[in-house]
Amino acid sequence: MTTDTAPLVDISRIEAAARRLAGHAVRTPLLRSSDLEAATGAAGAFVKPEVLQRTGSFKFRGAYNKLAAAKAADPALHDVVAFSSGNHAQGVAAAAALLGLSATIVMPQDAPQAKIRNTKRLGAEVVLYDRWRQSREEIAAEIARQKKALICPPYDDPEIISGQGTIGLEVAADLTAQGLQADVVLAPCSGGGLIAGVATAIRHHFPKAAIYAVEPVGYDDLARSLAAGRQIANEDSPPSICDALMAKKPGDLTFPINRALLAGSLAMSDETALAAMAFAFDRLKLVVEPGGALALGAALSGTLDLKDKVVAVVCSGGNVDAAMMERALSLPSRA
Amino acid sequence: MTTDTAPLVDISRIEAAARRLAGHAVRTPLLRSSDLEAATGAAGAFVKPEVLQRTGSFKFRGAYNKLAAAKAADPALHDVVAFSSGNHAQGVAAAAALLGLSATIVMPQDAPQAKIRNTKRLGAEVVLYDRWRQSREEIAAEIARQKKALICPPYDDPEIISGQGTIGLEVAADLTAQGLQADVVLAPCSGGGLIAGVATAIRHHFPKAAIYAVEPVGYDDLARSLAAGRQIANEDSPPSICDALMAKKPGDLTFPINRALLAGSLAMSDETALAAMAFAFDRLKLVVEPGGALALGAALSGTLDLKDKVVAVVCSGGNVDAAMMERALSLPSRA
Repeated sequence: MTTDTAPLVDISRIEAAARRLAGHAVRTPLLRSSDLEAATGAAGAFVKPEVLQRTGSFKFRGAYNKLAAAKAADPALHDVVAFSSGNHAQGVAAAAALLGLSATIVMPQDAPQAKIRNTKRLGAEVVLYDRWRQSREEIAAEIARQKKALICPPYDDPEIISGQGTIGLEVAADLTAQGLQADVVLAPCSGGGLIAGVATAIRHHFPKAAIYAVEPVGYDDLARSLAAGRQIANEDSPPSICDALMAKKPGDLTFPINRALLAGSLAMSDETALAAMAFAFDRLKLVVEPGGALALGAALSGTLDLKDKVVAVVCSGGNVDAAMMERALSLPSRA
Repeated sequence: MTTDTAPLVDISRIEAAARRLAGHAVRTPLLRSSDLEAATGAAGAFVKPEVLQRTGSFKFRGAYNKLAAAKAADPALHDVVAFSSGNHAQGVAAAAALLGLSATIVMPQDAPQAKIRNTKRLGAEVVLYDRWRQSREEIAAEIARQKKALICPPYDDPEIISGQGTIGLEVAADLTAQGLQADVVLAPCSGGGLIAGVATAIRHHFPKAAIYAVEPVGYDDLARSLAAGRQIANEDSPPSICDALMAKKPGDLTFPINRALLAGSLAMSDETALAAMAFAFDRLKLVVEPGGALALGAALSGTLDLKDKVVAVVCSGGNVDAAMMERALSLPSRA
């Protein structure tokens, strides 16, 4: 954990990330949904569809910001290595390709086929490992040693957090343009980089906003860490379909930010994720993966009182296999 | 067919429609797709996702424009009636509700369940009819007589065409803002209202653009009418999964516009529609219905040489049942 009093992530660093990303990342729209308003009672319900981002998830933002900053600092940089269940992998692969860097990605063997396939298509070399028996950190560190490569971490890095924070900047700008302020903002949470960046940007523009992380049941390390006041890891977690949200514990950089800025972290079930995927398919016409839909699921779940509030929800990724979507669309509750 | 020399639809009428729609229709983004560029060789490939429009299709634009203009002209207007396989139904129902009008919609019994369900949810009364044995026009006319209701036609009306034309205005504005001009624009075509409005707006801003309608095989009445120089109806058409694109012949108003402005009309198969739905799911993260995906399918089919061109494709609707999406996602060609 950092003990420095100067924040490593602040609004100026996020604004610098926005300047780096301009013309490279998709400036995703903020979609107002009358169906989500009807379902929640919100006065204004908005979805930030990062499924429309390059590579199908928000991860491109942080990866591009990190690699562009690193290349500016060291023009001789040639290789980059990352470990990821898939969305960060694709984000790093696409960012590296745009910046002329060579990427190696360490991915679990059981990652969704669509994510492995897309990472290869984006030009990266993929090294598979056994999630239950091998350490991805050790494999990545060994590759970094051999290739003198830069490790692009998934969340616990100021440039990664700042890149993800540009989502919050855009939400704030689009609401402000409509004369609105966010009352409640929800985003999915794994290691906490997305929600930390979003919270920093949103709270700068809307100081009273209540910002919630949303985690899968069994992977609610942030919720338990916030309650304990210190980083607590998940143990003996059951399997989850939210493959993008399976970080073991809050990051050393992300936790202090989230502890300072969040109203809380909500733990949601796989069934909530599936119901939200079906809602996104039927009502928003968006393809959202289980973890990417979890904050939408929380908004729909009734856990928070959203009546008459202005609510913004990040749908963070859409890299889902057909079989998982069919599972969501065959839920008995949809009939 | 009109013989008047003054055009019923022109850029100023489309701009008036844009002013009426502001704040009511979704200002859909223009999404650039590197995957579509890779698949087509286009220098710039853009998708206009009208699946994100209110009610899940572009039809809201024309319906709202028509009803808002009618209500402004006659503040005592109370009832509206329309016939539609589904997307126009939902557009009229939503527009009527926003304007405080009462809507009755005549829909075929075999329309997708999602479209019938959504039309009812939007507050309209639904009257079902047998597509093969009854005349929807006669049923609607009888309801209009009984209720003194305004008939909101699906395409052959200047305000409807102008409302759909706002899509072309937005495409032109977004390309211009990036310093680009459209070389090729494609949109699905049923009665021709969408493509007529889009062509009017696009050709105003980009006089050299080649604009193509895209029709289902067996429902290529516009292609055959353009070749013959007069309106020709479809006869003995086989069934098509493109339920939104089954108009019998070009409209009296839309045909002269399309004859003057289009580079042609392309006939595409159901398989092309399904492949495009899968592409939209996998690469664009958009839920698109068969007819809504047909122009995207044409772009992907290789029928046109798009190499080094700037191409914009309208994905016009996303109101699809889960079973049809599962059919698209299980195509052998996707493996």
